[in-house]
Amino acid sequence: MPLNTYLKKQTNMKFLKILLLIFISSYGVLMAQEEVEKWGVFELVLEGSDVGNPFLETDLHAVFFHKDTTFSPEGFYDGNGVFKIRFMPTREGTWTYKTFSNQEELEGNEGEFFCTPAGSENHGRVKVAEQYHFEYEDGTEFMPFGTTIYEWTFQNESTKAATIETLKNNPFNKARFLAIPPHKEKYIDGGELHLKDYPFEDTGKEDWDFTRFNPEFFKNLDECITRLNEIGVEADLVLFHPYDKGKWGFDMMGMENNLRYVRYMMARYAAYKNIWWSLANENSFIKDLDDEDWDILFKEVQEKDPYGHLRSIHNAGRIYDYNRPWVTHVSLQYYNAVRVPGVSPLLRDIYRKPIVHDEINYEGDIEKRWGRISAEELVFRFWNAAIGGAYATHGESYEESDWISHGGTLIGESPARIEFMKNLMADKPWKWNPIDQYYELNMAGKAGLYYLIYFGEEALEDWAFVLPNKELKSGAKFKVEIIDTWGMTVVPVDQVFEVVPLEGDGYKVRDKDNAVISLPGQKYIALRIQRIKD
Amino acid sequence: MPLNTYLKKQTNMKFLKILLLIFISSYGVLMAQEEVEKWGVFELVLEGSDVGNPFLETDLHAVFFHKDTTFSPEGFYDGNGVFKIRFMPTREGTWTYKTFSNQEELEGNEGEFFCTPAGSENHGRVKVAEQYHFEYEDGTEFMPFGTTIYEWTFQNESTKAATIETLKNNPFNKARFLAIPPHKEKYIDGGELHLKDYPFEDTGKEDWDFTRFNPEFFKNLDECITRLNEIGVEADLVLFHPYDKGKWGFDMMGMENNLRYVRYMMARYAAYKNIWWSLANENSFIKDLDDEDWDILFKEVQEKDPYGHLRSIHNAGRIYDYNRPWVTHVSLQYYNAVRVPGVSPLLRDIYRKPIVHDEINYEGDIEKRWGRISAEELVFRFWNAAIGGAYATHGESYEESDWISHGGTLIGESPARIEFMKNLMADKPWKWNPIDQYYELNMAGKAGLYYLIYFGEEALEDWAFVLPNKELKSGAKFKVEIIDTWGMTVVPVDQVFEVVPLEGDGYKVRDKDNAVISLPGQKYIALRIQRIKD
Repeated sequence: MPLNTYLKKQTNMKFLKILLLIFISSYGVLMAQEEVEKWGVFELVLEGSDVGNPFLETDLHAVFFHKDTTFSPEGFYDGNGVFKIRFMPTREGTWTYKTFSNQEELEGNEGEFFCTPAGSENHGRVKVAEQYHFEYEDGTEFMPFGTTIYEWTFQNESTKAATIETLKNNPFNKARFLAIPPHKEKYIDGGELHLKDYPFEDTGKEDWDFTRFNPEFFKNLDECITRLNEIGVEADLVLFHPYDKGKWGFDMMGMENNLRYVRYMMARYAAYKNIWWSLANENSFIKDLDDEDWDILFKEVQEKDPYGHLRSIHNAGRIYDYNRPWVTHVSLQYYNAVRVPGVSPLLRDIYRKPIVHDEINYEGDIEKRWGRISAEELVFRFWNAAIGGAYATHGESYEESDWISHGGTLIGESPARIEFMKNLMADKPWKWNPIDQYYELNMAGKAGLYYLIYFGEEALEDWAFVLPNKELKSGAKFKVEIIDTWGMTVVPVDQVFEVVPLEGDGYKVRDKDNAVISLPGQKYIALRIQRIKD
Repeated sequence: MPLNTYLKKQTNMKFLKILLLIFISSYGVLMAQEEVEKWGVFELVLEGSDVGNPFLETDLHAVFFHKDTTFSPEGFYDGNGVFKIRFMPTREGTWTYKTFSNQEELEGNEGEFFCTPAGSENHGRVKVAEQYHFEYEDGTEFMPFGTTIYEWTFQNESTKAATIETLKNNPFNKARFLAIPPHKEKYIDGGELHLKDYPFEDTGKEDWDFTRFNPEFFKNLDECITRLNEIGVEADLVLFHPYDKGKWGFDMMGMENNLRYVRYMMARYAAYKNIWWSLANENSFIKDLDDEDWDILFKEVQEKDPYGHLRSIHNAGRIYDYNRPWVTHVSLQYYNAVRVPGVSPLLRDIYRKPIVHDEINYEGDIEKRWGRISAEELVFRFWNAAIGGAYATHGESYEESDWISHGGTLIGESPARIEFMKNLMADKPWKWNPIDQYYELNMAGKAGLYYLIYFGEEALEDWAFVLPNKELKSGAKFKVEIIDTWGMTVVPVDQVFEVVPLEGDGYKVRDKDNAVISLPGQKYIALRIQRIKD
């Protein structure tokens, strides 16, 4: 967090302790906490020299020790002679550290801090779990229900505050947004120009020195990521994007500058537990970077992030090879993959990683076809993803709201249905994984115990109780609920179903009385079928 | 080809020339043609020593020169002191060669032969063309319409002859089959036991010496591949398979033996122009081999095949990474990928290689669910593949016929429809590639000029003339034909359509008079829409 925010937050800390800490530390240390909760951000603030170009010429890192655990995060220059090293402690107890630098003032600073237990809302970073899913570091399940707010960090405070408020009141727990502004003539929100800082130093009229970052720009980003962290929203931070089109040149800085930028971002943001690295949005539209460049950038992220935050890249036409070892999950843009059932299981089998459909068109009414699907269609696509054992990401692009660009307020009808689905997904004994995925197109759950069947656009009048016989024997009993995924209702069927083999089919069971369940004859209906005790 | 077959074929060759050739060659040469057509098989037959284990101990290769072109195929031991080097000349004119060996008799044999122009039916080997398609080496298009006859080479002569006859009279131009027999108690066809040879030397009662191949077994395979070659059918030869289940142990020989086997296969079969290498059928069922082993085996094939025949692998549950550089095309088994539209374009975009759905369930009536889909369903899946810019492979598994195992005779209804589709695909100015694949689920062709729209299981009564506006401007005129893919009819619509922008949609054009085309209201209908001159 930025120093001023930090100071404000520390008013309850004894001033004496701070003074003492400064006194016992080496001469370069300006500030450091003495207590940080597990997976919080410890920040060591050092005073050094600003002679020359510290972004280029100063090497700085610290080694943090706790018992047999060691981390070596790099530091970064934050302007005005101030250098910072951020660190995310992963274990409780006393950590000691020592700094290393080619600047005398920054070299050999030593100290320690105490890592307290994580707060009740702090579960650590998100990682891959059970191959196709996610969980927090403490084992708490994390089901990504993302939304898209590309430029929210570049808005004025009232819009940013509104965005945070909206996120708090909606099902979304992951936000995709750009680290670097896209080129626009000006950033307008309510008539106010509000992009006052740029990521690089302006040596003239928008003539950027890519060797000098602009700390003021990144202090805003620090604060935005912190604010998301505080409300439990993961920051799916897009490092590169093609929306500059060479106008500012942020998308064609050359690999040396790209790598320095990646390194700066790792030093600055890897200590935030809610960070996900999205190497790019629509990567293939960045003409300056081919897949070998992306390999290099991925490897740099992998090497410089000490904690192994999630890493992916979001495609346009050319799909990066998500099989590469440094990709932790798939972040796909392929609308047709969620318009028909049965595709996500194939993607899981191709990549053997979690599948996140990170752009599936947006609920909205703009002219662009990617931004004008109905709420019904968006929810339908969410269900197609989920029933295939994958996840999807929301976006809203009404002329009136333009959530995907600015954030602010949501006006669409899909978020409530997405929340309904999220609650259903949470209210379960088992994760939604495909059942019999080579033959069943629309079934998830846990064979033998728990089935979700999604009928999508089929408006069925009834459904004969037939299931795959995998893990099932005669006599198993089930209850059924009819789910209206649009109407947001769950209606139990007042009947117990008991299975026997389906004659003439070695792969199915049926209800022993050939029960047929009446359905509402409308679209977007699902069934939840759960085993009950005999 | 085997020596006796070869001799029979050469009756029209002047005997004197043979004698002369033997005379001028080195002492070890038993036989070599003096003329071979381009992409034919030149075979150098050498007499060497059978002391010890020639399969293990004898190194043999030849270098073939023609101008600046050089090939170095390896030779193989064919039993009884006979060694062979097979070579596929790729250019017309005089080729010279010299042999190299650690056996004195096989070392330093020199000679030459003349490569004549390819015959009219000989187009060379098949290779990838236009990224997602195939062509022969001479540029002639090759559209794979494969079929599956796993064990046809292990049948008696009457069944083999019937298989060849069936292939001649059907649309199939690629046959998938096993190089190595699966374990069965006995091979029965018409009551006759007919698997008399095995690939390895039997040192006792089915106690195999994996260091010694059985040339008699492979002479039969030579002949089978030659017979396919003669009728223009590609031999998609499966090198490894899991159907041994460890009983004979052919699927768990260990990597040293696996690699020697691969090398023997390359030496023996790479000179056949119609060879495709299928590393495995259902590879992940071979418990003994993981993906790193497959990498090694692929690399061996790539290195030892001098001509670069097509290479792929066919999956079961675990999908090998077809993105790896030695894979030339995708050979996928994923039934659901052809049950819904729009999936093959995604696969093309993921792999950027040709997609061949090499197992999509079989037309048939057996109990196993993979072998009991209807002909309608099989043809539907072929169309889903093709309309997505991919290819599919046929199989038939009626109790009565068991084509997929033995070959013999086809009794199903799908081959005629597949032939109809193949003819449609051939009767075109453009290849079938997806048009607007992120938004259109069921459209192939060439934007602006040529469209195939496949309605699959939708039984539409009519269709309003609306197309994506990509490459289209107002005034473009079209003719339309209604294709009944099951009924095998093509009915022209007696009307000219002219497009104007579709109001309120920046991505579509409509007919200027809002024409609506009447459709038969049944499944499996397609439209062919072709631009006509103004």
